Amino acid sequence: MEKVYVVGGGATKIDEHWDLSLRDLMVQASERAINDAGIEKRDIEAIYVGNMSSGPLQGQEHLGSLISTWLGIPGVSAYKVEAACASGGVALHSAFTSVASGLYDCVLVVGVEKMSDAITSDLTSALIMADDQEYVAFTGASFVGLNALVYRAYMERYHVKQEDIALFAVHDHKYGVNNPYAQFRKEIKLETILSSPLVADPIRLFECAPVGDGAAALILCNEKKVRTLKHGSLIELAGSAVATDALSINYREDILTLKATRVAFEKALKMARIERKDVDLIEVHDAFTILGVIHLEDLGYARKGEGWRLVKEGEIEIDGKIPTNTMGGLKARGHPVGATGIYQVLEVLMQLRGEAGKNQVSEAEIGLAQNVGGLGGTVTVNLLRKVR
Amino acid sequence: MEKVYVVGGGATKIDEHWDLSLRDLMVQASERAINDAGIEKRDIEAIYVGNMSSGPLQGQEHLGSLISTWLGIPGVSAYKVEAACASGGVALHSAFTSVASGLYDCVLVVGVEKMSDAITSDLTSALIMADDQEYVAFTGASFVGLNALVYRAYMERYHVKQEDIALFAVHDHKYGVNNPYAQFRKEIKLETILSSPLVADPIRLFECAPVGDGAAALILCNEKKVRTLKHGSLIELAGSAVATDALSINYREDILTLKATRVAFEKALKMARIERKDVDLIEVHDAFTILGVIHLEDLGYARKGEGWRLVKEGEIEIDGKIPTNTMGGLKARGHPVGATGIYQVLEVLMQLRGEAGKNQVSEAEIGLAQNVGGLGGTVTVNLLRKVR
Repeated sequence: MEKVYVVGGGATKIDEHWDLSLRDLMVQASERAINDAGIEKRDIEAIYVGNMSSGPLQGQEHLGSLISTWLGIPGVSAYKVEAACASGGVALHSAFTSVASGLYDCVLVVGVEKMSDAITSDLTSALIMADDQEYVAFTGASFVGLNALVYRAYMERYHVKQEDIALFAVHDHKYGVNNPYAQFRKEIKLETILSSPLVADPIRLFECAPVGDGAAALILCNEKKVRTLKHGSLIELAGSAVATDALSINYREDILTLKATRVAFEKALKMARIERKDVDLIEVHDAFTILGVIHLEDLGYARKGEGWRLVKEGEIEIDGKIPTNTMGGLKARGHPVGATGIYQVLEVLMQLRGEAGKNQVSEAEIGLAQNVGGLGGTVTVNLLRKVR
Repeated sequence: MEKVYVVGGGATKIDEHWDLSLRDLMVQASERAINDAGIEKRDIEAIYVGNMSSGPLQGQEHLGSLISTWLGIPGVSAYKVEAACASGGVALHSAFTSVASGLYDCVLVVGVEKMSDAITSDLTSALIMADDQEYVAFTGASFVGLNALVYRAYMERYHVKQEDIALFAVHDHKYGVNNPYAQFRKEIKLETILSSPLVADPIRLFECAPVGDGAAALILCNEKKVRTLKHGSLIELAGSAVATDALSINYREDILTLKATRVAFEKALKMARIERKDVDLIEVHDAFTILGVIHLEDLGYARKGEGWRLVKEGEIEIDGKIPTNTMGGLKARGHPVGATGIYQVLEVLMQLRGEAGKNQVSEAEIGLAQNVGGLGGTVTVNLLRKVR
């Protein structure tokens, strides 16, 4: 396999973009990534679009041709890759294999989602399409409802209080303040979270990733192409893995473990030929506070039932044991579902390049992004390593 | 790049499968492909699902996790790949790059679509999502309506009569009779076509690919895995290419040329290191009769405006100059949109293995499948070559 490098990245701010369509968001993010990489549009040989719900929400499929048309480079290979909220991560993985194969020297990956102009019932319907329509969704279950079951089971099994889990959102907002792409750039207090409206008992509104619109893009290239670029730093996509698990939690051995996280992480570590202890920072997919806590456990940074302790004890701060969601995570940066996996990798890229400003993790060399589809039906782990 | 082989294939009959869900169709086709390849389920390391409209039509996304769950192999990498009606072709291409990269020894590709239980207005809405929602679809244009514009322009520019174009459907039905997977296994006469109801003037009902449900699957593997299998014949996926064009015909230089066909074909020929004259049979994406004719031209087998002559003069019969749609094409085999690209390749596989029965093309060694998304916004060309 050829080595694959991430040589550029760009994004739109996540927001309620009433005046920007799917194509506008994709084009803006892509052009920023292209400029950042210092390449020309004509260098791009293939485009991979990560998106979950453009069909149900925007009445638009065929996003590959749409973006190649509006970037002005029709002719290139382009298509959409989807795995619910892990669509960004799998699009990146797909792009990775195409460059690793030697087929392409340079490709673009763009994740996009436009959610805020959908009516709430449509949005709820679109999101539960991540779970099993015929055995789960048809019962009227919502995605936040399923997470509430997990949350409740976690508190009961491990005797943990909500105030300890909800801290994850406080953490995210602290770091979102300095992320130019973040939907919410202000800190929030634990009391505010705990007194915010109940969405699905026990989940409070401010424990949920927000609804928003956004696109993020990355440029990947091989060794040959890298040599033509004048970059100070160089970041390798050293490991890229996708793992699935039973689609619905009712089929799992344990609803408090997202097994696919462990499987994907192990695959990615093996590919990158590193160990867990070599990882300097992580981005985890905290669509709800409880998930952030569980991911810390499934990635092996805490024992089961103790992920919340890492948060409470400051170990996920930028100067902690394992800096986590250092640019705001899903809660503060935002979660335009199919784009999230790309925003995460972009943020890891910023850290490894030393471009994370006030949120900079010192001497960060290896970073990880964990992107989750559904309630762990798919998990992708992408590992970036600083070469210079 | 590692060489990639197609070592197994299987499908469901295309039909109105009222008693089979998306998962049932995928599982049936996949298990047939697995059995045909002589591998075990546990040999599969990744799954690529080609599907266009499971979200809008079935309320189900996240098909990768769904199929890995129901095949009983959660843990593997699995995700959906989409490019409108070219979803099958792009899923195959994505699978191809993953094996070519050396990442996987053995992967499954499955195309699936379930359309017949959607109400007609939903189906019409879902299909036009292949075109530009904001500049074309919102006007009320339907997909068959756009093809009617092309049909009319073709007749006017080249002074061709409808009866000469409609012959393409007669041809398809002649060969569909012997395809066990075909939705319609009976011949039809030109008069029947020309007297069938008008759908969008001048397109008649019997010139349109039907609505149906189906899934088709292929097993791809590398040289290392091939050596462990006991197969008489061996077929290589020698070329696999994707090309885009402007999403909507109003942006094209010429609405009677699907430029992406030429681009994808040239890329695929180059990859396979062969020339057009080496190709023994082709499968083209004739969603409407007019498209079949245009594809023959864009692939270079006829001059512009003369594709219909090949049909009329018998040159696309199995003993003609360029045997085409030898198992019934989209018109008779059927067109469950996201699955079609896989059915086409399965049919080429049957021909190269000498398993096409009464429709066998003698001494077929190289075959091509052209799969089209939208009105040529995406075209994939996959080239299979008999190794032994």
